[in-house]
Amino acid sequence: MNEEDFIRKLSASLVQGPDVAVGPGDDCAALDFGLEELILAAADQVVSGVHFIEGASSPEEAAGKLLNRNVSDIAAMGGRPTHALVTVALNPVDETWLRAFHKGLQATAAKYGISIVGGDISSLKSPGQVCSLSILGRVKREKLCLRSNAKANDILFGTGSFGNSFASGKHLHFTPRLEEAQFLAGAYTNAMIDVSDGLLKDARRMASASNLALKLELSGIPLAPGASLQSALAEGEDYELLFAVHPDKVPELLRLWPFKNVKITRLGVFAEGAPGEVLDSSTGKDLTTAICGFDHFHEKDNH
Amino acid sequence: MNEEDFIRKLSASLVQGPDVAVGPGDDCAALDFGLEELILAAADQVVSGVHFIEGASSPEEAAGKLLNRNVSDIAAMGGRPTHALVTVALNPVDETWLRAFHKGLQATAAKYGISIVGGDISSLKSPGQVCSLSILGRVKREKLCLRSNAKANDILFGTGSFGNSFASGKHLHFTPRLEEAQFLAGAYTNAMIDVSDGLLKDARRMASASNLALKLELSGIPLAPGASLQSALAEGEDYELLFAVHPDKVPELLRLWPFKNVKITRLGVFAEGAPGEVLDSSTGKDLTTAICGFDHFHEKDNH
Repeated sequence: MNEEDFIRKLSASLVQGPDVAVGPGDDCAALDFGLEELILAAADQVVSGVHFIEGASSPEEAAGKLLNRNVSDIAAMGGRPTHALVTVALNPVDETWLRAFHKGLQATAAKYGISIVGGDISSLKSPGQVCSLSILGRVKREKLCLRSNAKANDILFGTGSFGNSFASGKHLHFTPRLEEAQFLAGAYTNAMIDVSDGLLKDARRMASASNLALKLELSGIPLAPGASLQSALAEGEDYELLFAVHPDKVPELLRLWPFKNVKITRLGVFAEGAPGEVLDSSTGKDLTTAICGFDHFHEKDNH
Repeated sequence: MNEEDFIRKLSASLVQGPDVAVGPGDDCAALDFGLEELILAAADQVVSGVHFIEGASSPEEAAGKLLNRNVSDIAAMGGRPTHALVTVALNPVDETWLRAFHKGLQATAAKYGISIVGGDISSLKSPGQVCSLSILGRVKREKLCLRSNAKANDILFGTGSFGNSFASGKHLHFTPRLEEAQFLAGAYTNAMIDVSDGLLKDARRMASASNLALKLELSGIPLAPGASLQSALAEGEDYELLFAVHPDKVPELLRLWPFKNVKITRLGVFAEGAPGEVLDSSTGKDLTTAICGFDHFHEKDNH
């Protein structure tokens, strides 16, 4: 079974209460506490030897990446981050490492006004660090963005550029597209996802969740410096946003897009078809099984 | 620096926003979203080779322990658990293990009506499992219990019995004292803590946080089957409650205590004195440095 199907099956076994507006399977869960806004909740981790290389990445960088990954998930739902909890299991229990990690965590938290409200530290049997963070946020109900909300004929857009995230260090030093997402959510889109596992894989997730096919315009994909198309499609950890815009809204979006340093690019169009099927728009070739995305279960390299 | 001082210093470096009613340092944080109740949040982890032994404990047991530890933290604040997020890093990425873990998680969640709303799975560099869980809950404002709320002359009580938790398997199969805590909170106490790191260490935390000394009545401590006094004081992972009761309330509490299968026992009395000083009430001997509690940083054994 692939990672995606396996996790979907695990998630389906978890029973959700009536106040869970959005359960497992999107970038965040959304909880309805009867407030004007929904509460967002997500968890993610960075593991030494998998998401960062001990020695090559500092504890501050690992902490920054961990929190930013979670902020990116909140952004993709149209929300703003508010609180976080963090656990670390490590060997050796190096107080210098922990101090630097928490310094990096607080520095990143301060940028977004996030309160780190608790956590836990444990020893670990083998050398390394496993850092897990849960984030809370808020989203206005009309801004809530789901990967399942794309409609046929919606245009797929992406922020920024794709590929070469590991070699360039972007995976450690990216800026979550929080302000961009706030501009988009509710006004131009309610269908958004962040690219953690590769443009192709995450675009396919949107298509699949929306019960649509997607015609991807490969020649239009903006490549990050040094990136190949293969890397842009499949390497992952770009932490850019993919979002679907009604065709009538596109001209206004392009005219009013206010972020000088972050471009948006048309990447394709959603269409009726086999759910989750991704086609090369120029050749009609099925990309669904052509190029695999980054798979945190089975990767061979350490990043 | 000891674990306690080090973590206190780390926590103090984390800046809290105005909606954080209780920040790091208690069993849970308490967040004020303007609701009738406060939102509770905590995170904890179980690590193979530290909190459970791979092979000796099943994935279901590890999952049950992980969630129950967090439920115990919510109980100790006077609250009820509502939602959880879980991350697992493991090697090998064994789907059978993950399925069993999630089955155990859902079985325990169902007992309390907890929705597991999200999470993440990653590979791990070395063999083992690191499981982290964040829990949310709710507490009525008048029921909120803090370890810092003990008053001089308050009587220290404990639920159940103490010691021998690892050898007896209690650490894997305990029942969090949720209903007992609900009975106590607001009505008989607003000062409570759960015993994760040993009766002596956790009682000292209450005394220290309340700026009081504590006279501990060693002869009254109920020992679990097979437990020595040393083990009852210092082994940890009992997941019983310690709580402070105003002396005027004690007779009513003892008369009305409704739980036939869980006794409560008087364990000591809080007094003016050096904050966090714990004295043997019969000899006046200082127990503060006599017996160490369970230290997740430096333990030599694997549980």
